[in-house]
Amino acid sequence: MRKDRIAALIEGLEKNKLDALLVMKPESVKYLTSFSADNTALIIGKGKKIVITGFIHAEEASEFFRGWDTRIAKKGIYAEIGRAAAARRIKRLGFEALSLGFTQYKNIKRVLKGAADFAATDAVESLREIKERGEILAIKKAAAITARALKEAKRGLGPNATEASVSRHIKRLFIKYGAEGPAFEPIVAAPPASSRPHHIPRAKRLGRRNALLIDIGAKLNGYNSDLTRMCRLGRIKPKFLDIYNITAEAQNRAIARVRPGVKISDIDRAARGHIEAKGFGRFFGHGTGHGLGLEIHERPYIARNNNARLKEGMVFTIEPGIYIPGLGGVRIEDIVYVEKNGCRVLTDDIDKSI
Amino acid sequence: MRKDRIAALIEGLEKNKLDALLVMKPESVKYLTSFSADNTALIIGKGKKIVITGFIHAEEASEFFRGWDTRIAKKGIYAEIGRAAAARRIKRLGFEALSLGFTQYKNIKRVLKGAADFAATDAVESLREIKERGEILAIKKAAAITARALKEAKRGLGPNATEASVSRHIKRLFIKYGAEGPAFEPIVAAPPASSRPHHIPRAKRLGRRNALLIDIGAKLNGYNSDLTRMCRLGRIKPKFLDIYNITAEAQNRAIARVRPGVKISDIDRAARGHIEAKGFGRFFGHGTGHGLGLEIHERPYIARNNNARLKEGMVFTIEPGIYIPGLGGVRIEDIVYVEKNGCRVLTDDIDKSI
Repeated sequence: MRKDRIAALIEGLEKNKLDALLVMKPESVKYLTSFSADNTALIIGKGKKIVITGFIHAEEASEFFRGWDTRIAKKGIYAEIGRAAAARRIKRLGFEALSLGFTQYKNIKRVLKGAADFAATDAVESLREIKERGEILAIKKAAAITARALKEAKRGLGPNATEASVSRHIKRLFIKYGAEGPAFEPIVAAPPASSRPHHIPRAKRLGRRNALLIDIGAKLNGYNSDLTRMCRLGRIKPKFLDIYNITAEAQNRAIARVRPGVKISDIDRAARGHIEAKGFGRFFGHGTGHGLGLEIHERPYIARNNNARLKEGMVFTIEPGIYIPGLGGVRIEDIVYVEKNGCRVLTDDIDKSI
Repeated sequence: MRKDRIAALIEGLEKNKLDALLVMKPESVKYLTSFSADNTALIIGKGKKIVITGFIHAEEASEFFRGWDTRIAKKGIYAEIGRAAAARRIKRLGFEALSLGFTQYKNIKRVLKGAADFAATDAVESLREIKERGEILAIKKAAAITARALKEAKRGLGPNATEASVSRHIKRLFIKYGAEGPAFEPIVAAPPASSRPHHIPRAKRLGRRNALLIDIGAKLNGYNSDLTRMCRLGRIKPKFLDIYNITAEAQNRAIARVRPGVKISDIDRAARGHIEAKGFGRFFGHGTGHGLGLEIHERPYIARNNNARLKEGMVFTIEPGIYIPGLGGVRIEDIVYVEKNGCRVLTDDIDKSI
């Protein structure tokens, strides 16, 4: 149970004049309580700690949620949400607007029968945007497995390896080294296919030209990691080396700007501006980075239109790239976290040379 | 491209007086086109084949969707959906109510600016409920990897194995044998913890009593499989053997009833009725099975309140169970598909003895 997080959540709800929040996203349930389960709902407010689950998780929920109003739904979770809201006289119930499905929303509106307002919030995502020390450590541990698997996979890059075989190798290593598995399907892209940022690995030999793009991340204890490196396959053409160097410099410039109070769009600008100045702006069409934690993509999004400001404890990737159809692509990605006076790169011990 | 499936979809839309369907769920996009991508939308209707994607998938989409109205969204996918609907004069646009998020729904309503109705449908899920021969074969191939991994994992069940080590072993075997990975996190539960249907494997020795519950599935080429077997750990107590035999008989009775035209609730009843008659009704609190294919849980749901009727080509699990706190649980799960005159068990070559 994470009483500190629940207390912070309730404080935020009161400011937004919500009696309680309905929490159904598994990552949110885990974040607030440490309980891992699907199809389980929490209703949390001042003086209200309600958990609703079905037969599947009844035994462990009854044991885990001591002191909570624990309700085992016999006729579906939605009906029980309605009953609980009525019994506890909830008049204004928040919901997780970023994860609730349209049909779930309709079902819950129906069971509330108009007795309670049902208001969109991003309360849990807001809390999760600022990581605690323990969370940063969890991401760092996941990243260490990623780095170890990458190092071993690089040694196996021979003339008979294929994109798909490298991907499989890395996934097996993740599990061997204790991870749950990959945070996302590995992206292993030989040139020229690496001009496609989310290329799907094929059963195709890697060849001996330029460098292989490997974008991977292990998931450990629910926390995700994410890392992209370029691995030399043979002779690097001057133009390929050019885009590699420009991308590396763009990443350095973005990382150098990371500290509390900086506008997030300025981080994006630092990377994008350099790539644009070198004439490759139209070959860098995605955002500069994304937060990560219990989800592989979460706040903050390091994008040109994000006017929020960095805060201490935010953790995100910095991953500019240049993608040229016919030649191939370069992306370099590290995880950084915002410290009091600047930032730390969580993945800076992982060889970045091409 | 799956022109046959797209044609069937369009036929269904016309019956529902929809000009077009907005398809955003990755499994639906893959089902209709064979294109694998996130953050990609299709708008499909009579004379309308529109694909909207961002920079990430621009190159492969432009290459893949020959003859389509291909739109690379520069300012977000939602704005481009609005522009496409206006340009193509769509008045009544369907959306996938079972997968669209509340916030996505709001965003799309906004960009449609009231110029088009936005109507909830389950058009793609309805098509997907009936599998083609190729899909049944794909599930069968995934199940074959599951069976192979289970067989090998069973040989490794020694006194030093833990639930977590068995789970890890199986996940590595899945990848070794060519699967993308697990369809879901393996459930490996030693008694008495197996009384929790979705128990999370722990770093705890398996012990020498009764039988281990292993519920696993490999995912191959996007298709999921699902299988539960009880693996003997040592001496089986009479009561444990009892619930095993009752569960096995319940499963046999349900499978025996599977054929086109049968009410789905009757399949559930066949299993549940037997367990109830033996006095264990309250220890079987979940549904009797679920469809599977591109998703691990999809239609049809074999539940007591599902009054639909079975149709040829449906593929689903039959997985009754009895879960007794303090003793442990039993579940036996196979995949069946509905044939013209009955059904076939896709997983019947996998040893079921305790």
